[in-house]
Amino acid sequence: MDNIKIAVDAMGGDNAPSEIIKGAVDAVNELGSNIILVGIEDVINKELDKYSFDKSKITVKNASEVITTEEVPTMAIRHKKDSSIVVGLNLVKNGEASAFVSAGSTGAVLTGGTFIIGRIKGIERPALGTCLPTANGKFAFLIDSGANVDCKSNYLVQFAKMSSLYVEHVMGIKNPKVGLLNIGVEKEKGNSLTKETYSLLEETNLNFIGNIEPRDVPFGNADIIVCDGFAGNTVLKFAEGLSQAIMGIIKDEITDGFYKIPAAFLIKPFKNIKKRFDSEEVGGAPFLGLKSLVVKAHGSSKAKGIKNAIKQCEIFVENDIVLKIEEQL
Amino acid sequence: MDNIKIAVDAMGGDNAPSEIIKGAVDAVNELGSNIILVGIEDVINKELDKYSFDKSKITVKNASEVITTEEVPTMAIRHKKDSSIVVGLNLVKNGEASAFVSAGSTGAVLTGGTFIIGRIKGIERPALGTCLPTANGKFAFLIDSGANVDCKSNYLVQFAKMSSLYVEHVMGIKNPKVGLLNIGVEKEKGNSLTKETYSLLEETNLNFIGNIEPRDVPFGNADIIVCDGFAGNTVLKFAEGLSQAIMGIIKDEITDGFYKIPAAFLIKPFKNIKKRFDSEEVGGAPFLGLKSLVVKAHGSSKAKGIKNAIKQCEIFVENDIVLKIEEQL
Repeated sequence: MDNIKIAVDAMGGDNAPSEIIKGAVDAVNELGSNIILVGIEDVINKELDKYSFDKSKITVKNASEVITTEEVPTMAIRHKKDSSIVVGLNLVKNGEASAFVSAGSTGAVLTGGTFIIGRIKGIERPALGTCLPTANGKFAFLIDSGANVDCKSNYLVQFAKMSSLYVEHVMGIKNPKVGLLNIGVEKEKGNSLTKETYSLLEETNLNFIGNIEPRDVPFGNADIIVCDGFAGNTVLKFAEGLSQAIMGIIKDEITDGFYKIPAAFLIKPFKNIKKRFDSEEVGGAPFLGLKSLVVKAHGSSKAKGIKNAIKQCEIFVENDIVLKIEEQL
Repeated sequence: MDNIKIAVDAMGGDNAPSEIIKGAVDAVNELGSNIILVGIEDVINKELDKYSFDKSKITVKNASEVITTEEVPTMAIRHKKDSSIVVGLNLVKNGEASAFVSAGSTGAVLTGGTFIIGRIKGIERPALGTCLPTANGKFAFLIDSGANVDCKSNYLVQFAKMSSLYVEHVMGIKNPKVGLLNIGVEKEKGNSLTKETYSLLEETNLNFIGNIEPRDVPFGNADIIVCDGFAGNTVLKFAEGLSQAIMGIIKDEITDGFYKIPAAFLIKPFKNIKKRFDSEEVGGAPFLGLKSLVVKAHGSSKAKGIKNAIKQCEIFVENDIVLKIEEQL
């Protein structure tokens, strides 16, 4: 890991800087990672003082500004040149780091990634891949999960190609099954975008298994689910809301009424359920199609999520996924 | 109710003909409805013999064919002229019935409705509205939930107008709140379709409350959720799959392991949860924009769902919603 350095945005996310910095330290201690922490130097150093680790493995790069999730991404990237996101992305652009991890503003990370690091030649649109937990205890890689709200069929084919390489080499699933998110299983179902994409995917050498209906998504029938960013983001956010709503209702029903079960009995099972759906296990959402990897960690990431996002970057770089994508095009 | 006759497809749905016919009989006995049951005469009469009811209130219209859900809708409508769906829709077209209820093939009902009954003049696309249960014990009316996979912004505005009238007069919610399904709350968020639609909805006299994020859909913040049929059907089918997956996992976790709770304790709470989400309460999905109402009842409808779909048709006709839609345009 000695030649790989990962730049980490110390200031982004709900639990920044403490959990981010703890995650970086854990990566150093457990994985032997090399990290550049980007953000307000004094704040970072004060946090780092709490831990013992090999000091040669973490450097701090000062960035005086922070981009908030409330800011308009394009404006923020343009005007906050000394923000942790812009400075971190520039480290990657200049070759001082191999990849960038941020739990900050999704919009700013995607916009900044595209403008500062730039697309792989031939890639029409970089796309965000998110691991969606499924009932079989595995994950489905949902791409695009929100970066491109208006898509053409050839973008979706590129999403499928990039994510097949990613899922195989970074997540270790051989010859991953690619499904097209669609409102029917038959080839002729769907809107003009999915119909066109279906035909194009059939012509590729990918392990294309056809359409995946939204009702089958939670059961993990496909390793990769390809869709436009509007549909992907809808699925992602609806999953969040619906599972929260259902869990709330179940808690109410079970702990209420004549046949009530004491709430304490639910602590363990609900903890287990939470664990099953622990997205921190897989790190963050890779923004695929750029000349280097940018990982958007969840806004609520804790140390474990950041450590795993760093690991994810290292595997990506070691396996030279960017080169593999270039070769596939 | 004496001047209103509802045609009911006796052959469509998983529980046809028995539950459909029971539902029709219940409507007669409980609501005083007038029904024309459409389908294979002998089969229907044999079922009807099981019940006692005012014989003047149910007539049987023979239709020798049945369209299955496996058939291509356009072909089936064209070739099966003596199917219960085609015959039933023709009863409405010819003025012998005021509305049509079917739990059969969604595609055939929508295609047949459009071709046989026809659109209201000025309506670009009829749309399917589905009541989505929400955590507050109410429903959100999701339109279009699957009839039009490729939409333009002016279609969505018409969906909003039609459903505002429907939800106010048939479901009894005064000045219903209209939300636009979108991946962000801000006006400038979303794809080209939602951005255009947002501006157009602002100019209407509807109670437009802005964008509704998918994560907020299950909490019932809007009475009506407007979207294209691809997004709507995705939400609908994903909700089905995800709730099934989550309930399964919870059952496993709660009845398993060291702190296990006997499964019997879950019967009552799970029954209550099912009741909360009982879509049979609201009847079926109205296909709005045709010259007469067509209601698509869920394929798994039982007698209660059919009875409520009949009631829904009667309220629609009594309130002259078609005229109200024409006036709104």
